[in-house]
Amino acid sequence: MNKLHTFYFLLDLAGTFAFAISGATAARQKGLDLFGISAIAFIVACGGGMIRDICIGAIPPAGLTNSNYLIVSMAATIITIAFYPIVQKLNRPVIFFDAAGLSLFSVTGAQKAIVFGHNAEVAILLGVITAVGGGVIRDILLGRVPAILQKEIYASAALVGAMIVTFGNEIKGIFHDWTGLIAFIICFSLRLLAIRYHWNLPVFSNGQKGK
Amino acid sequence: MNKLHTFYFLLDLAGTFAFAISGATAARQKGLDLFGISAIAFIVACGGGMIRDICIGAIPPAGLTNSNYLIVSMAATIITIAFYPIVQKLNRPVIFFDAAGLSLFSVTGAQKAIVFGHNAEVAILLGVITAVGGGVIRDILLGRVPAILQKEIYASAALVGAMIVTFGNEIKGIFHDWTGLIAFIICFSLRLLAIRYHWNLPVFSNGQKGK
Amino acid sequence: MNKLHTFYFLLDLAGTFAFAISGATAARQKGLDLFGISAIAFIVACGGGMIRDICIGAIPPAGLTNSNYLIVSMAATIITIAFYPIVQKLNRPVIFFDAAGLSLFSVTGAQKAIVFGHNAEVAILLGVITAVGGGVIRDILLGRVPAILQKEIYASAALVGAMIVTFGNEIKGIFHDWTGLIAFIICFSLRLLAIRYHWNLPVFSNGQKGK
Repeated sequence: MNKLHTFYFLLDLAGTFAFAISGATAARQKGLDLFGISAIAFIVACGGGMIRDICIGAIPPAGLTNSNYLIVSMAATIITIAFYPIVQKLNRPVIFFDAAGLSLFSVTGAQKAIVFGHNAEVAILLGVITAVGGGVIRDILLGRVPAILQKEIYASAALVGAMIVTFGNEIKGIFHDWTGLIAFIICFSLRLLAIRYHWNLPVFSNGQKGK
Repeated sequence: MNKLHTFYFLLDLAGTFAFAISGATAARQKGLDLFGISAIAFIVACGGGMIRDICIGAIPPAGLTNSNYLIVSMAATIITIAFYPIVQKLNRPVIFFDAAGLSLFSVTGAQKAIVFGHNAEVAILLGVITAVGGGVIRDILLGRVPAILQKEIYASAALVGAMIVTFGNEIKGIFHDWTGLIAFIICFSLRLLAIRYHWNLPVFSNGQKGK
Repeated sequence: MNKLHTFYFLLDLAGTFAFAISGATAARQKGLDLFGISAIAFIVACGGGMIRDICIGAIPPAGLTNSNYLIVSMAATIITIAFYPIVQKLNRPVIFFDAAGLSLFSVTGAQKAIVFGHNAEVAILLGVITAVGGGVIRDILLGRVPAILQKEIYASAALVGAMIVTFGNEIKGIFHDWTGLIAFIICFSLRLLAIRYHWNLPVFSNGQKGK
């Protein structure tokens, strides 16, 4: 299992990094200053996990106590500023890492709620909140309607991941240890396929004026 | 008292349902997808109570642990989507239930804070936050200035309800058990009268350019 | 030390008052009603501290339990409404008190996190959040990109103040008791100098379209 833990740890850093890059890029496009870019990068990377930790009573939130998150966010900020033309061309890798972060955070979010002894509903909802919370706060701070409420299968992929972890946890058996990995792979594949084939959830528009 | 509890329970579901309908309708008008509509419906119904629970240390918040709220929110979402033309015409019933939800949540919000042993100021402020918090988060997510900061007596009605519950709790006597019901009726009447007669709090506009 | 405590207490009230005035003024310019103005004034004054208290488990947050904050916020609201033409001309004093509030809240925010036994990273981050949180919520509620992400050295001054408190706390010696005062003075001076000389953090704009 040790290799699996190292794998999760590296994935956690990669997800944090990808989320921080996406935050820093959005903040820079909006013309924010150095503090604003750093703050948005950190919030996208850690905001969802902080809401989860507050809701389950893991005080203070990991985003504040564990310096890995702050260091990785700062590194992402510096890279975004120093190598902006390159980061802009990195659209594909960023989307790839963002999908990895989404999948990982939905898995670890649900797992942490289970470890703290909460029920299935709490675990599933907090898995989704951990995965998408940071992006929602970013969009609120930048003054736009959160993208996840409108675009391709995104929060829904996190929902699937969190559900697999939670229901997998009920099954005590040989596959138990691997639930997290399976949930990660399915969520990740779902997200990448949704991007590739432009899968969307239905939008409803009869008899209304829309936005 | 048992009948009173059943009455409160049904009112709680009705209030949750009305708040969820109002959220789903607003989200659909904005053109959000299926996840977006469900998420906004759930947040309007449970957001205020979750802030209250986090502030008084009732962890995890009832909105996450008690599946009634999730089920009622999902039902409201499905009804809003499936019967949209009917829901649109339901403006009057929705306003009626929304007023019921507001009144009920201000009462139960203040009561829960008192049960957790907090002082009068905490109870009154959390009664108001429980009642209006969900609607404020909805407006933030949809990118508009929260309606409650601008329109007819709304949060003020919740304030009156929460104050009656809190001060009524100090009076140990024959009316004690009925404080919640009295507060509910006064808050509810105040809100309906405010809608009927367009009562507003004062707005101040001398010597400024406004927005 | 008693005089120092009285000094802090008065400064705390002055900072709360200044933040509340800035909130009430912004809300009134936006055309909000009486409740809206009071609510924004209270949130600017107490929002940052409430986020801090929730993050360190100081439940319920001081902003809800300590009536000083509510009373000072209401007083600031009444003054802003009753003497609006005068308050508008008070731009300079308001900026002065706002800088005092910023500096004080960064110091007390970091100190409270240390008293609750948390590590240096938590103390520094929560010092900044206490100082700027209320203003960020104000800007979100009024539908604009938070000013602190864009303008002159503001959050950065709070960061410097919180760092001095936190690292000063490590040094056990004769200067220990005065760390808070030193941090306050440096943060305050930095903020006033930034306003006076229009010091800004770098903004990056090559190869992009801006806002």
